[in-house]
Amino acid sequence: MSAKRAVVIDLKFERREIDAALRNAFQGRDVLRASDRDQDLSAAGYAIVWKPDADLFRRAPNLQVLFSGGAGVDHILAMPDLPDLPIVRFVDQSLTTRMSEWVVLQCLSHMRQAPRYLKQQRERVWRELPQPEARDLTVGVMGLGVLGQDSANKLKMMGFDVVGWSRRKKELPGIETFDADGIDAFLSRSDILVGLLPLTPETRGLFNAALFSKLRKGGRLGAPVFINAGRGGSQVEADVLAALQEGTLGGASLDVFETEPLATDSPLWAMDNVIITPHAASASDAAALFRHAERQIDRIEAGQPLEHLVDRGTGY
Amino acid sequence: MSAKRAVVIDLKFERREIDAALRNAFQGRDVLRASDRDQDLSAAGYAIVWKPDADLFRRAPNLQVLFSGGAGVDHILAMPDLPDLPIVRFVDQSLTTRMSEWVVLQCLSHMRQAPRYLKQQRERVWRELPQPEARDLTVGVMGLGVLGQDSANKLKMMGFDVVGWSRRKKELPGIETFDADGIDAFLSRSDILVGLLPLTPETRGLFNAALFSKLRKGGRLGAPVFINAGRGGSQVEADVLAALQEGTLGGASLDVFETEPLATDSPLWAMDNVIITPHAASASDAAALFRHAERQIDRIEAGQPLEHLVDRGTGY
Repeated sequence: MSAKRAVVIDLKFERREIDAALRNAFQGRDVLRASDRDQDLSAAGYAIVWKPDADLFRRAPNLQVLFSGGAGVDHILAMPDLPDLPIVRFVDQSLTTRMSEWVVLQCLSHMRQAPRYLKQQRERVWRELPQPEARDLTVGVMGLGVLGQDSANKLKMMGFDVVGWSRRKKELPGIETFDADGIDAFLSRSDILVGLLPLTPETRGLFNAALFSKLRKGGRLGAPVFINAGRGGSQVEADVLAALQEGTLGGASLDVFETEPLATDSPLWAMDNVIITPHAASASDAAALFRHAERQIDRIEAGQPLEHLVDRGTGY
Repeated sequence: MSAKRAVVIDLKFERREIDAALRNAFQGRDVLRASDRDQDLSAAGYAIVWKPDADLFRRAPNLQVLFSGGAGVDHILAMPDLPDLPIVRFVDQSLTTRMSEWVVLQCLSHMRQAPRYLKQQRERVWRELPQPEARDLTVGVMGLGVLGQDSANKLKMMGFDVVGWSRRKKELPGIETFDADGIDAFLSRSDILVGLLPLTPETRGLFNAALFSKLRKGGRLGAPVFINAGRGGSQVEADVLAALQEGTLGGASLDVFETEPLATDSPLWAMDNVIITPHAASASDAAALFRHAERQIDRIEAGQPLEHLVDRGTGY
């Protein structure tokens, strides 16, 4: 056994990707796999987890720190026997950049009527559609953590009017922000609503019929658009569907769902004005995740405080 | 007749849009319509044209300046009886912004595999696809006029590696640029090629099989992508099609075509990796066009030089 505390990996990622990333990670330190059911995990001091096994903490009783394999930590906080350990969220430039790419892509797609042009293309119809430009539309970003802030800034650079919302007021240069009390004012400004919220008891079911009815009416898109890349548990999918069908929403881009994978019989798949991606807006890169964990482990072992710690009170 | 020289409008835009824009334009000046075949146009000193009638210059022999209704002027320079008058190109923030929106949308769409995800959506398939992020890809922008420069800057802000090409070397802060002699080096760097070139004798048929074969091979997209929002005459469509079919190109976004509208029997319509829009990447806004023409007319009548003049030698 190495002198350094071992790391246990319990990530439900592709095996091949993990193997490749581990070739250059955690040099001089034992790496254990929770997927090896015969492996003794008692030497593990650190766990890097994504949707961990229910018995992980029983098998690894000497853990000191938990690292989330993604930006969200609801998959950890929901565990029944969660020990009282510090939890470190995954923050990484690549994770952030990929999310902003997806968000900007979806906002531009709806603004430039990509779904309608695509339908015309399938029908071989050459017809220009009327359309606003970015400055004619307000994008409301809900959730102003690292991901929300980067998305808001890039949307602004692309010319959109951008407003931001977070439970506790945050100041963003050049972007008007709202807090819990300002939710209705925020929604009434938003032609496009972007959800980048963590899943907590407060955000569960937040994106429902009542909320959609408060979005801006009469904007240049005709009807507001709902974009969610946070967590599926924050949306009431029956309400999303009904709002799209009755016209309260003019379109949607969904990367997350109440149950994933999305059921094959969901009517959302077949809607022309809905863009679906399979929880792929910002996939964690295993190599980047391990570099991030190494940096934090180095900090602990050098006696420095951990960064990106989760607040269990707020759930993020 | 008003004391000020009259303006003649010969724009093949939607009549309704022109009527609406004229309500607030050219106050105190006669506005004549070339579409009124009985109208005497001899008083017109200025013409605002898009694909003008062949007999416009015979009907309006006293013109002093021609204003193009779009960013391109090939539709004017191709006229057989073109008088030797200054030609002003349409430069407008809205025109520029809309073009950059379209270009960024297309680059993000191909990078994030929007066509393949859409195919999966139609088949109700939940499967994450491997993908690069913006910094893993080099976008080569051909044409560094006002539109090309703005697109290059916005692609860079989104994280892409960006290189630029123009016939005569241009310097862009933070972006490596190439000139005529550097074309092969430029192409060999480009994972995504964006065409924003004017149509001139030198650019006609430029995007052909030989050029596509020089694009970067082995990049993170698998095969290079061709995006054209300049002029259809710059592309050899048979070569675009063949390159897509044989895999020299991995995808394309085309807003312009050799013949517009694109023929309904073109195989391009039905290709999964091709995104087609009907010459709508950056539609000229009539109100903005008239404001631009008014500014330049004010300059002439105040004895100041015209801006955005076309060089007939280069054709743009």
